[in-house]
Amino acid sequence: MKLVKEKGVQRIEGGTILSPLGYKAGGLHAGLRYAKKDFGVIYSEKPAHCGAVYTQSHFQAAPLKVTQESISQTHKLQAIVVNSAIANACTGEQGLKDAYQTREWIADRFQIPEEYVAVASTGVIGEWLPMEKMKKGCTEIKVDGNPEDAHAFQQAILTTDTVEKTSCCQVLIDGKTVTIGGCGKGSGMIHPNMATMLGFITTDATIPSDVLQSALKTAIDQSFNQITVDGETSTNDMVISMANGMVEHDALGESHPDWHHFQAGLNTVCEDLAKQIARDGEGATKLVEVSVTGANSHQDANIVAKKIVGSNLVKTAIFGGDPNWGRIVGAMGHSGVDLNPHQCDISIGDITVFSNGTPQPFNEEEVSRYMQAEQVNINVFLYDGEGKGKAWGCDLTYDYVKINASYRT
Amino acid sequence: MKLVKEKGVQRIEGGTILSPLGYKAGGLHAGLRYAKKDFGVIYSEKPAHCGAVYTQSHFQAAPLKVTQESISQTHKLQAIVVNSAIANACTGEQGLKDAYQTREWIADRFQIPEEYVAVASTGVIGEWLPMEKMKKGCTEIKVDGNPEDAHAFQQAILTTDTVEKTSCCQVLIDGKTVTIGGCGKGSGMIHPNMATMLGFITTDATIPSDVLQSALKTAIDQSFNQITVDGETSTNDMVISMANGMVEHDALGESHPDWHHFQAGLNTVCEDLAKQIARDGEGATKLVEVSVTGANSHQDANIVAKKIVGSNLVKTAIFGGDPNWGRIVGAMGHSGVDLNPHQCDISIGDITVFSNGTPQPFNEEEVSRYMQAEQVNINVFLYDGEGKGKAWGCDLTYDYVKINASYRT
Repeated sequence: MKLVKEKGVQRIEGGTILSPLGYKAGGLHAGLRYAKKDFGVIYSEKPAHCGAVYTQSHFQAAPLKVTQESISQTHKLQAIVVNSAIANACTGEQGLKDAYQTREWIADRFQIPEEYVAVASTGVIGEWLPMEKMKKGCTEIKVDGNPEDAHAFQQAILTTDTVEKTSCCQVLIDGKTVTIGGCGKGSGMIHPNMATMLGFITTDATIPSDVLQSALKTAIDQSFNQITVDGETSTNDMVISMANGMVEHDALGESHPDWHHFQAGLNTVCEDLAKQIARDGEGATKLVEVSVTGANSHQDANIVAKKIVGSNLVKTAIFGGDPNWGRIVGAMGHSGVDLNPHQCDISIGDITVFSNGTPQPFNEEEVSRYMQAEQVNINVFLYDGEGKGKAWGCDLTYDYVKINASYRT
Repeated sequence: MKLVKEKGVQRIEGGTILSPLGYKAGGLHAGLRYAKKDFGVIYSEKPAHCGAVYTQSHFQAAPLKVTQESISQTHKLQAIVVNSAIANACTGEQGLKDAYQTREWIADRFQIPEEYVAVASTGVIGEWLPMEKMKKGCTEIKVDGNPEDAHAFQQAILTTDTVEKTSCCQVLIDGKTVTIGGCGKGSGMIHPNMATMLGFITTDATIPSDVLQSALKTAIDQSFNQITVDGETSTNDMVISMANGMVEHDALGESHPDWHHFQAGLNTVCEDLAKQIARDGEGATKLVEVSVTGANSHQDANIVAKKIVGSNLVKTAIFGGDPNWGRIVGAMGHSGVDLNPHQCDISIGDITVFSNGTPQPFNEEEVSRYMQAEQVNINVFLYDGEGKGKAWGCDLTYDYVKINASYRT
């Protein structure tokens, strides 16, 4: 494992959800999908404190309801079971029963209380889970403690994703090394407030559930909640974090002298995963990062950044390598944030294209060439205050249409 | 001209903005575009009362500012000058000067006060108008009073549109026939609150400007503001209506016994144009109409309808003929309206696919076949109240991406 240092946070290249002490995982093909792995479990040797954030959709899927109920009762988790292919959303009473049944099977399998099991699903809405296959998964799943099993799990949760998403970092707490690992999946229906994605974060830190919950929310607001692939919010989105306390140190809280290390580490893992999800958006050829500074507030900056990165016209222009900054202005203009059109600068990469309400002369070919890269940065400076924010997305391509015009059929 | 009767409103097939008495128009190729007509004028023999609604974008284009200023001073208009190709938006002081100059040239051309001239532009943002060509347009434009000139004007305002949009109807006021004609253009950047389109409505009714303004706002809220092609709001959107009083009757107001005739006629023209714009959305192969009933309020119904019709995932599913109603639910779930997932029915055409929180068995092939039609209707029934609303859009296709990935280059 290679170490990459950044602001007191050491990124661990190649690290996974199994890098923190005391976690095991597994993934297998239970038959929900034609061939790909479709069923996975993360298991903690000790009951872990936990935090979770759920979709803001009013149509919350059955597994989220069951998981929310479990966590609110015990504030602890020891296992997370995930299936892809079928979302178990909009499935009425039967869907709830199926989620409870899955929870029960996993509790039996690991001999732990039912309330220590979180259930997550992703896939097509409105179909019932094939419970025989789910039972097969619950019975046959193995968690041997092999670090490579992380990949089996990570593959099992993917749907239209093309790559696994993973991140890991280490921070020092009371002089001891604490590890935070994460994985996630996209890749369509990705927009605000936990829209369409699953994220799982493990750590061996010692931290109470309420503190972890609050730290997770902070990290998510500037990462997962700032990505958009297509402006959609799913019924199944959830990010769950587990902290099993395998590294003994003074319990973390905001008054702990190393608190900011932990929060920075959690932020890093969440931002890494969020960017990987955006980059792997359905049909995407590149990652788009929009950075807004000089806004009235961080919230305003985040709103404007997300509006730009979510604009279909900006996304198609980036796909086409067309430095059509008018579309950036178009998106900003209807963000809902009060902007002064005469006080704003826009640059694509390092090249200023608009300044103080007036177009700037620039070399179109140079900007177009820059836009061919794997990542395109758009920077907006407002002259209103100290607020800053970032958002991430991807380009809108023929393949997005292709993937989504023939998802099920 | 063929008459089509509907609720006291007679649609006039083949009618145009020149069907009401006292209007002339013209359109020509001023050279802003390679070959297509790109410059047009509507002229009223008498100064007309007027109403206008403008984009909600904070980045309002120069012509809108000039038009707004004119109308607020005199509340009358006698000419509207429009160019396509260049939006004259985000063009700073120079852009404002150019819009004033255009207004002056048209005022000179027709020997009318400058404040009687409205200026409208559509096209690429951030480029200055080629004023020599604009001068050529202002000098050479002819308005001979030939009814066919309406088409020259209608063609001159189009950008990526593939067809002219026009509507016309007649209503009886005090036993006299009053005619309302309209035309418009889309076809990308179309979303809420006067997003990216131009609409021009002429009538020979006698109606004060403030009453016309209020009637126009009512008509627009249930028509133009309920269409979306790509969720974008442009810098240049505006709908202008002129009423020159060539048909003499008691001035219209809400207390006039035939008031509802006029409002119904205006609603009809606006809805016709809005649907034509949605149907001709960039790359669209079909019109999508979403109807929501049983909502808590009309506003809630409108919001939910527009959210569904604007969803990229719903739009691609419709393009693919995939009856994936889960995406409809997904869009409803994050509309911001408080919904009860267990109390809602969804049908595609006449076929119920979801009822009371549970998927309904249906023949997928039958629904898929229905979705191949020129128009696809989605109906949502909530069990919350009496609110109802409609929204219109189109499917999202390869051609949308193609058109927008290479708009300028």
